[in-house]
Amino acid sequence: MPTMAREIHLLAYPAGEPQPGDFTLVERPLPEPRHGELLIRNQAISVDPYMRGKMTGKRTYTAPYELNAPMEGRAVGVVEVSRDPDFTEGTVVLHDAGWRDRAVVGSGHVRAINVIDAIPVTAHLGVLGMPGRTAYVGLFEKARMRGGESVFVSGAAGAVGGLVGQLARLRGASRVIGSAGSAEKVDYLVNELGFDAAFNYKDGPVVEQLSQLAPHGIDIYFDNVGGDHLEAAMAVANPFARFALCGAISGYNATEPQPGPRNMALIVTKRLMLQGFIVTDTSDATADFYREVAPAVADGRLKFRETVVEGLENAPEAFISMLRGANTGKMVVRVGT
Amino acid sequence: MPTMAREIHLLAYPAGEPQPGDFTLVERPLPEPRHGELLIRNQAISVDPYMRGKMTGKRTYTAPYELNAPMEGRAVGVVEVSRDPDFTEGTVVLHDAGWRDRAVVGSGHVRAINVIDAIPVTAHLGVLGMPGRTAYVGLFEKARMRGGESVFVSGAAGAVGGLVGQLARLRGASRVIGSAGSAEKVDYLVNELGFDAAFNYKDGPVVEQLSQLAPHGIDIYFDNVGGDHLEAAMAVANPFARFALCGAISGYNATEPQPGPRNMALIVTKRLMLQGFIVTDTSDATADFYREVAPAVADGRLKFRETVVEGLENAPEAFISMLRGANTGKMVVRVGT
Repeated sequence: MPTMAREIHLLAYPAGEPQPGDFTLVERPLPEPRHGELLIRNQAISVDPYMRGKMTGKRTYTAPYELNAPMEGRAVGVVEVSRDPDFTEGTVVLHDAGWRDRAVVGSGHVRAINVIDAIPVTAHLGVLGMPGRTAYVGLFEKARMRGGESVFVSGAAGAVGGLVGQLARLRGASRVIGSAGSAEKVDYLVNELGFDAAFNYKDGPVVEQLSQLAPHGIDIYFDNVGGDHLEAAMAVANPFARFALCGAISGYNATEPQPGPRNMALIVTKRLMLQGFIVTDTSDATADFYREVAPAVADGRLKFRETVVEGLENAPEAFISMLRGANTGKMVVRVGT
Repeated sequence: MPTMAREIHLLAYPAGEPQPGDFTLVERPLPEPRHGELLIRNQAISVDPYMRGKMTGKRTYTAPYELNAPMEGRAVGVVEVSRDPDFTEGTVVLHDAGWRDRAVVGSGHVRAINVIDAIPVTAHLGVLGMPGRTAYVGLFEKARMRGGESVFVSGAAGAVGGLVGQLARLRGASRVIGSAGSAEKVDYLVNELGFDAAFNYKDGPVVEQLSQLAPHGIDIYFDNVGGDHLEAAMAVANPFARFALCGAISGYNATEPQPGPRNMALIVTKRLMLQGFIVTDTSDATADFYREVAPAVADGRLKFRETVVEGLENAPEAFISMLRGANTGKMVVRVGT
């Protein structure tokens, strides 16, 4: 039975952009699994934008990471040792003991996944996991998107954004527009994911590019970015537009308060609705989500990509580069087999 | 039959704070009322914050005022000459040909009001009129305030804000907090309208004063002011707080774009909902509003004040001083008897 685990610990709360030196790789003895526990060998771990918010030492909607302790995060792995008769050894499971190669976890915090040949298990960290559910809940429950509406999503080449645009298409959006941070990503959005239009926000002011691509305005905005993207979406919004605010990655590494939109008065004159949300608040939609999304992923109607980084020791770099936008689709770190 | 009308015309779109010279008093011949028209002698006209938005020359949710023409606005008056058998002469009516002492109006745009001895007719411009309906719709339909919730309203000594606080009280708010711009208004809120707490926003940073008065946070914010008030409300808000955004008077005279809240990321982490609204979009609530509010006004459970300026020629000054916060309760201009 394996007795050691390799874990990534946080050494210091980063000021500004996280640095590799804020993290360290630690080798520690694994506890013996007790009754009701599983020893899991991780195959892949997730690095996600929300984790930056847990590296501030301040409580937001969730507790911060502790220093000098293994971080938590979504992971997919294989049960190596089971002390729960409901889990046979070899079962592929989803759990929250990420940022390490092995972990002992209470079986109540573990979910077996249905391995489908057409879908890699890492999809459960992305399109079929929390990012996918975020897209689904934000677009359909929070923004209440309906057929015939025009949809804009920022950070559209990311794990969440790419699915938002495709779900909008499937539900009959009149027009789907995305923003991303490179020409390659813009090409991916239009030519692979089927967006009607996309732009590189580094090419010029967001409001100008968005106005050009949305001559009839936008009815729905799914915000992953904040900052100038949110201001531009308010400027281009049609009356009664609905915004689902999911994240504001543009400000995650900021050390000073970021200026807000200068056009807040438009919220009144255009009767905009802005709804912030955290997907983990909503459990109701999970069944609907899975029923609608899993078959569409399996038969290729919903496309996704992963950016896979090899090796647990590279997880901090993967996380840092994800915040910079280096990924297309979900960023995952492969840590074992 | 009267043949002349005195009217206030807009001469120029003000840059910044409107000046008396942006307006002029014009005497013009009245047209002969034709079939289906009424000649109305105005008793009082309304000056409201939204009118500043119609003085910009740009279309927002409503058309701008034309230059060198009579402005529109709510008014209460008496039918002097009727060419519609449904309206007898002497009927007191509500209509939109304000900013003048007499007008000829199509009877389809006129509503007879039920004169109640206990309530002055000018109340139909305020607590029983559009400002009252704004308070009602914003608090109950948009912010969906429920009993037991903590409510903050800015501009609380104004026509809308004073009613918001009292309606919240009537529906069982756990705590009602208001902001206003003078010690006298703060006293009025607490000692006359029954707010639990109030502060003068000129006494210090809004966020500090609000935090002190709302030690358990706020669940509902009714925004008449924007700017630092909105930022403070976001800072003090509890998770899942709901904001009804009705106006942003702090920016109405601004010539430069106003900076937005620096804490927009809280919309996500606290899952805030911000809903802009314009009361004229909502007609459904009118009956409910009147049924609930009129008796409470008549029997004194809902209190209101009016700031009355005498004389049509003083309407521009009344409007300008209302934007500066000179009024307590509804600002009206008496133009006749």
